[in-house]
Amino acid sequence: MTTALIVLAAGKGTRMNADLPKVLHPLAGAPLLIHALQAGGALDPDRTVVVTGHRAELVEAAARAFDDRITCVRQTEQRGTAHAVAQAAPALEGFHGDAVVLYGDTPFITAETLEAMLAARARHDVVVLGFHAAVPGRYGRLVMDGDALAAIVEYKDADDATRAIDLCNSGVVCADAGMLFSLIAAVGCDNAAGEYYLTDIVGLARARDLSAGVVTCDESETLGINSRAELAQAEAQFQCRARDAAIADGVILPAPDTVIFAHDTWIGADAVIEPYVVFAPGVTVESGATIRAFSHLEGCHVSQGAVVGPYARLRPGAELAEGARVGNFVEVKNAVIDAGAKVNHLTYIGDAHVGAGANVGAGTVTCNYDGVNKHRTVIGAGAFIGSSTMLVAPVTVGAGAMTGSGSVITRDVPPGDLALGRATQVNKAGLATRLMEKLRALKAAKAKV
Amino acid sequence: MTTALIVLAAGKGTRMNADLPKVLHPLAGAPLLIHALQAGGALDPDRTVVVTGHRAELVEAAARAFDDRITCVRQTEQRGTAHAVAQAAPALEGFHGDAVVLYGDTPFITAETLEAMLAARARHDVVVLGFHAAVPGRYGRLVMDGDALAAIVEYKDADDATRAIDLCNSGVVCADAGMLFSLIAAVGCDNAAGEYYLTDIVGLARARDLSAGVVTCDESETLGINSRAELAQAEAQFQCRARDAAIADGVILPAPDTVIFAHDTWIGADAVIEPYVVFAPGVTVESGATIRAFSHLEGCHVSQGAVVGPYARLRPGAELAEGARVGNFVEVKNAVIDAGAKVNHLTYIGDAHVGAGANVGAGTVTCNYDGVNKHRTVIGAGAFIGSSTMLVAPVTVGAGAMTGSGSVITRDVPPGDLALGRATQVNKAGLATRLMEKLRALKAAKAKV
Amino acid sequence: MTTALIVLAAGKGTRMNADLPKVLHPLAGAPLLIHALQAGGALDPDRTVVVTGHRAELVEAAARAFDDRITCVRQTEQRGTAHAVAQAAPALEGFHGDAVVLYGDTPFITAETLEAMLAARARHDVVVLGFHAAVPGRYGRLVMDGDALAAIVEYKDADDATRAIDLCNSGVVCADAGMLFSLIAAVGCDNAAGEYYLTDIVGLARARDLSAGVVTCDESETLGINSRAELAQAEAQFQCRARDAAIADGVILPAPDTVIFAHDTWIGADAVIEPYVVFAPGVTVESGATIRAFSHLEGCHVSQGAVVGPYARLRPGAELAEGARVGNFVEVKNAVIDAGAKVNHLTYIGDAHVGAGANVGAGTVTCNYDGVNKHRTVIGAGAFIGSSTMLVAPVTVGAGAMTGSGSVITRDVPPGDLALGRATQVNKAGLATRLMEKLRALKAAKAKV
Repeated sequence: MTTALIVLAAGKGTRMNADLPKVLHPLAGAPLLIHALQAGGALDPDRTVVVTGHRAELVEAAARAFDDRITCVRQTEQRGTAHAVAQAAPALEGFHGDAVVLYGDTPFITAETLEAMLAARARHDVVVLGFHAAVPGRYGRLVMDGDALAAIVEYKDADDATRAIDLCNSGVVCADAGMLFSLIAAVGCDNAAGEYYLTDIVGLARARDLSAGVVTCDESETLGINSRAELAQAEAQFQCRARDAAIADGVILPAPDTVIFAHDTWIGADAVIEPYVVFAPGVTVESGATIRAFSHLEGCHVSQGAVVGPYARLRPGAELAEGARVGNFVEVKNAVIDAGAKVNHLTYIGDAHVGAGANVGAGTVTCNYDGVNKHRTVIGAGAFIGSSTMLVAPVTVGAGAMTGSGSVITRDVPPGDLALGRATQVNKAGLATRLMEKLRALKAAKAKV
Repeated sequence: MTTALIVLAAGKGTRMNADLPKVLHPLAGAPLLIHALQAGGALDPDRTVVVTGHRAELVEAAARAFDDRITCVRQTEQRGTAHAVAQAAPALEGFHGDAVVLYGDTPFITAETLEAMLAARARHDVVVLGFHAAVPGRYGRLVMDGDALAAIVEYKDADDATRAIDLCNSGVVCADAGMLFSLIAAVGCDNAAGEYYLTDIVGLARARDLSAGVVTCDESETLGINSRAELAQAEAQFQCRARDAAIADGVILPAPDTVIFAHDTWIGADAVIEPYVVFAPGVTVESGATIRAFSHLEGCHVSQGAVVGPYARLRPGAELAEGARVGNFVEVKNAVIDAGAKVNHLTYIGDAHVGAGANVGAGTVTCNYDGVNKHRTVIGAGAFIGSSTMLVAPVTVGAGAMTGSGSVITRDVPPGDLALGRATQVNKAGLATRLMEKLRALKAAKAKV
Repeated sequence: MTTALIVLAAGKGTRMNADLPKVLHPLAGAPLLIHALQAGGALDPDRTVVVTGHRAELVEAAARAFDDRITCVRQTEQRGTAHAVAQAAPALEGFHGDAVVLYGDTPFITAETLEAMLAARARHDVVVLGFHAAVPGRYGRLVMDGDALAAIVEYKDADDATRAIDLCNSGVVCADAGMLFSLIAAVGCDNAAGEYYLTDIVGLARARDLSAGVVTCDESETLGINSRAELAQAEAQFQCRARDAAIADGVILPAPDTVIFAHDTWIGADAVIEPYVVFAPGVTVESGATIRAFSHLEGCHVSQGAVVGPYARLRPGAELAEGARVGNFVEVKNAVIDAGAKVNHLTYIGDAHVGAGANVGAGTVTCNYDGVNKHRTVIGAGAFIGSSTMLVAPVTVGAGAMTGSGSVITRDVPPGDLALGRATQVNKAGLATRLMEKLRALKAAKAKV
């Protein structure tokens, strides 16, 4: 089956009360638009067209960053949903197959639902996605005629009997692309708003003796985001699903409500995620790894048996091999922590490789930035980095080498060597006592004055 | 309109089961009393009288710390609400205008409600604040006679018909001050408890052909705190409102339920507040600033474009200028971080000024305390502080100067200079290998014995 | 009264979908089995027998770690609850008294309920624990005959009238041990599953003219854990109870829902626990101590007036004396922080004693690990440890001694002495400016190429 996605993403989203276009507001760390593209992507579409408008360049950049094969077309005037879909026609010139119209502000449609819509095309020329609303309110109503969709009636045009229907219109439609554009060409704008409504294609299809049908999904899938309050509610819905899914997948979550997932978090079965862990995008955690409380992970990978935190921050490019250990108040960025290596306390590891089984003492810093450029630190397997060692990059500490605590390492340390850079300790007899007496006397004198 | 507030704050709050007087228990970082004073303060009263009793000196200190023009009077015996209000009479000698009676344990009354009560004085001599209770339970009932309040009937004195009324008495009243004290003078104590009840003034007013009326508010405004469980519930209610208000104000809050606000937190539109942020009192965050996850802020200011955290702690006196950056495991106290300056990792900045565009390396400490006094550190614009630099205050690093990582800086560094205090690195060939062998052999030998 | 506990812990818990036996899954930091043993332990039983099966050695180790007087017996085949209890018979040979049968996956039974069951033995030969189910569903029903239990009817065998009963069987039973084993010996396995059901003893008892009775408890006590979702629900239930109990005990919890308790957390009245605090097992906090936000405590003791956090991590063996202070980004392990001592910022204290009134500067590390062994650091009373001091253990800093900031202390410091290990600061005139120019020029040159 050849399929095209048309994703409407032109709106400003006035009720969001923000400069950012509505479809770029983040949900679980990704713009709403990306959620819609991911949902549609599950159909493995041959073409994807995103219709942009408000701050089009920003929206197009986000779409292309997600998939550079996406075509973006611009709707320069906001003249309704049918008008928006029509903008996609030139980009789909010569395309033969089904087109699915999705919305960039509707992030929760599932792959299963879209697949059911495509399957329903075997029975109907136009397939509309509907849902039974708990509170139908002002949604358009789907009037059925047996298995067929007779009409979509807008709330304001509905009589009492029609308003009593709880089967409502989500706006998502699927039809043969050519037929879709042909129907859209016939849509008029003779209504209060003077807009071209996509929903009118059902009546037009029926008038041409084409068949229209409905596929239904859970109401929660059709949640569209129009305000920040709805965005917050969508985020809560996303987190709730992600937590349930993780538990169902066998992840061990003693306090699931305190763990925050991103749209693409991947966690293996029997991994333990303690309370108060935040996953920003791009994280994979293997089975049997442990993420301890108050940890923050982004763009990183944690292998089997590794233990992270509490209070660990893994930034993009952190790679923890099997059994690696990153402890409290430790930041790791763009660095491999190899198998069994330990970075347990109060340390910054950036732009570095920590070899297998190495031990990095508390207070160590890879001094990766000279004010202009970033440089790389390599710590060999089994090396022992003394506490508060400053590793002034670019620098290499060889396998099995040691550094004395408090040393500033500016030159490479050969394997097996001990590097020291340390002033000799001098104990000045009684000086602490005299100093304190003096400081206190001065303070007392000042206080008198 | 001339207005006086009388705030009753004499009770012990036995059910709080604490030494601290009830009105001093904190809600959103401020004593309950302060919430009541802030609510009343919205009327811009000419006089405020706080009636204290239990541990009066503590309560008076809190009231005066909030506003030193407040008059405190003491109720030495606890003889009922009318008796408490009567203690305010001498302090309002010569005052002409309306008096509003509030309660130090009732923090949620809004300015709008109090203004509605003052406005209702145009129609009634005595105005009582009522609310429609979801579960009226043992509240006193307000019996209406058309637009007029006929009587306040205590639950235990109410017949079934009266108990069926859901309009209940909040205790908050407003009347001309002179008339209020005259009515109170007539209140008797012929009841089971032998106390003087403020509610009796309604009956006395009617007997004098004065008119009483009711203004209603949402039940949640009248929540009084009598136990720790109610205090916890009030805190939850406060946080819920603060989160909704922040979202409505355009603050970006991906996980609003995880952010904890103080009574006076101020955040500009389009500021981003990530999950798990705690605001203690005294924080202002400008539009477009970002507070990342797991940050803790108190008594500080964050300017536009500044980024804080994750895991940053801003203590009182921290001032971040535009575009400043305070990163993970960094503590800032009584210090300005000037425009574009970066303090990204594992650092303590206290009693300091970090100049515009300066970069402070990981592990740096402003050594501000000598065991007796605190001293100040000044870092010039564009300076580069190497990792783990100890800045022994008082000390100044000039503009554009650098310090070598691991240096202890005890003398001022002139602008543009490079300051170093570092022992030469020595690599002792093979010593790490031999040391480890020796330590392991010793351990093995010990294990044998 | 002589009592024996029989705790059934042989099941695999297939629906947990895990290698770990079901009864070893942790709830509030302790295996489910330990919760059951603690509940039963409140009866002060003379004998405790745990019936193990799936991965018996793991379960037995957990049981013995809890109490080494526990007898473990193995059920090698899973042939039903009566068969499981029968395995305990040899271990209770010669025991005379009551036996109570509990379940290792049922953690919430209270001491009060078990005591009520024992008391009910005065009136009945067999006592069954029942509960009124909100949704009786497929639970076995308890059919009463006045005060006596007439029968336990499995759901699938129940007629409509019996299914209408909401009094359900928890499975917990109590009877004279000898009689219990005698009844069990008569249980058959003539049912669909071919298993021996403990519930059958009620019918057998009635047939022998013995009396059976019921004690009821709240449904929440009987919650059994069969899946990870139920475990998460049990954890939520535990936390909810623990928070309510702490508030009732007078602990000050501004945001109770954000504090996570362990099964054995003990906190004194008027201690303050700020938001986002995690208690792992083994923590005691005295009255009047303060645990600030984002702190993590395990196996430690915090005395009166001590203040911990924010962002403090107390690991096993941390002991804070009165008025001690452990501040942000500080880790303390196996160490005493004596009265009034301060460890305020960015420090690792491990295997150490910090004397009364000592002050430990920011960035200090007790270098307790040499790559093979751990060593001890002693800091005397009133000592002043300069910022970023490396204390290379074993080492002692005497009372009232000082260390200069940035010093590496490898030898003992006598009392009152000042120890310094520091290179002299050199300011190289203009070198920072020249260095930066050179680095920028190099970068620009590279960018051109």
